[in-house]
Amino acid sequence: MTTAQLVSEIKKKQSFLCIGLDVDLNKIPEHLLKEEDPIFAFNKAIIDATHHLCVAYKPNTAFYEAYGIKGWKALEKTIIYLNKNYPEIFTIADAKRGDIGNTSTMYAKAFFEDLAFDSVTVAPYMGKDSVEPFLEFKNKHTILLALTSNQGAFDFQTKQVGENELYKEVLKVSKTYKNSESLMYVVGATKAEYLAEIREIIPDSFLLVPGVGAQGGNLQEVCKFGLNSQIGLLINSSRGIIYASRGEYFAEEAALKAEAIQKEMSAFV
Amino acid sequence: MTTAQLVSEIKKKQSFLCIGLDVDLNKIPEHLLKEEDPIFAFNKAIIDATHHLCVAYKPNTAFYEAYGIKGWKALEKTIIYLNKNYPEIFTIADAKRGDIGNTSTMYAKAFFEDLAFDSVTVAPYMGKDSVEPFLEFKNKHTILLALTSNQGAFDFQTKQVGENELYKEVLKVSKTYKNSESLMYVVGATKAEYLAEIREIIPDSFLLVPGVGAQGGNLQEVCKFGLNSQIGLLINSSRGIIYASRGEYFAEEAALKAEAIQKEMSAFV
Repeated sequence: MTTAQLVSEIKKKQSFLCIGLDVDLNKIPEHLLKEEDPIFAFNKAIIDATHHLCVAYKPNTAFYEAYGIKGWKALEKTIIYLNKNYPEIFTIADAKRGDIGNTSTMYAKAFFEDLAFDSVTVAPYMGKDSVEPFLEFKNKHTILLALTSNQGAFDFQTKQVGENELYKEVLKVSKTYKNSESLMYVVGATKAEYLAEIREIIPDSFLLVPGVGAQGGNLQEVCKFGLNSQIGLLINSSRGIIYASRGEYFAEEAALKAEAIQKEMSAFV
Repeated sequence: MTTAQLVSEIKKKQSFLCIGLDVDLNKIPEHLLKEEDPIFAFNKAIIDATHHLCVAYKPNTAFYEAYGIKGWKALEKTIIYLNKNYPEIFTIADAKRGDIGNTSTMYAKAFFEDLAFDSVTVAPYMGKDSVEPFLEFKNKHTILLALTSNQGAFDFQTKQVGENELYKEVLKVSKTYKNSESLMYVVGATKAEYLAEIREIIPDSFLLVPGVGAQGGNLQEVCKFGLNSQIGLLINSSRGIIYASRGEYFAEEAALKAEAIQKEMSAFV
């Protein structure tokens, strides 16, 4: 998917909501556990109920890998289902991968070709030749971790490196990478005040903002500092939406939560 | 596996060699491609031929994920085969994972419980609460990326952060993490001269050193600066061993390459 197509969908749906599909079998409705593939059954129900309210879905691969082959199959079924039924949706493999050159190419193939995701999250620690292999894939997007929403972000990301904090150095250096126009960035919403400075460095890039909801971010604040002329934001909510209820009508309850956020967002589109 | 068990194996085998199982179907012997599971068939042959010459195997998960479910199954079969037939071998999932707290726990479960690896490589960028969930698992080891062997390492890892380069800051800060005695570190062999300074910060930790062989490191240099009283080194070679030959006797050829390294290593044990 091109960035223009994503922006067009955002305007059409009046939403820049991304829903995180972080499926934990201990948290999904009990009646789904008797399904042959409870993870996929859960995702399918959530997707069918919420696809008109969001522009992106983001399965975090950890939740699938934790269930081994069964989990990997559920992830595969989920992305196939999304691409077949809702091709207008932007898909994010939240995998936080990154390795030396030829190995990053393997990861890129895994997520862009084998699973056919539109984008994948990548960790920046190993630098240029760990990121550029992902950027070689046309109409695919590499979402680089810049400033994450967890407490551990203060261990290294906010440390001073020359004139900048490390996460700003990541933004600046990555802009010099080949095909850097395919980069997006993860910026945690718990630090909305940082967004103004981030926008000075990368005014045009899309930001994937986790942490609105369960991790304590605030939509108004994030929009105030993070919006650009092409919206430029994907705001993720996972647990706050998908685990709205464990009852029979869990998908409808999830849709109500998503709709509340979409309505709030529509004021900014 | 405990560190003491690993050290004991190193002394017994007079080897601190780790063999990287980075299986690329374009590089393995053609006659294996007609096997039902060529990746596992290749690994099994390499393992059976080399297990007495090395103390660790390290599949890089990228090479398995690139083949989707089929790849994941081959990885699972490989670790099951290793744990059943060669339980004395230290196993490393080279996965370079890392995510916020509860999600890192999911990854830890995937590699330590579901796949029963002894260790997993982890990226440090997200800090303490992305690493500590891995450290909670008893007799499992978390191998943190410090200084990698690729060119991109100079983008961020060697940048000055206060008094230290970033990778030294990673070493120092990670020592304060809970259960940090279960940490090992990835240190690229292309920078052997850095090992002396690294040993000042972490004299007792095991170092996983990739890059001896295909990536251009030098065993003598690495030993000179990196050895400690408990050896404290695992030196990895992947392509240089496993792709020694594409002929019928590829496994025997691999064993010859491994034996040459083991013999060189025996002088240091």
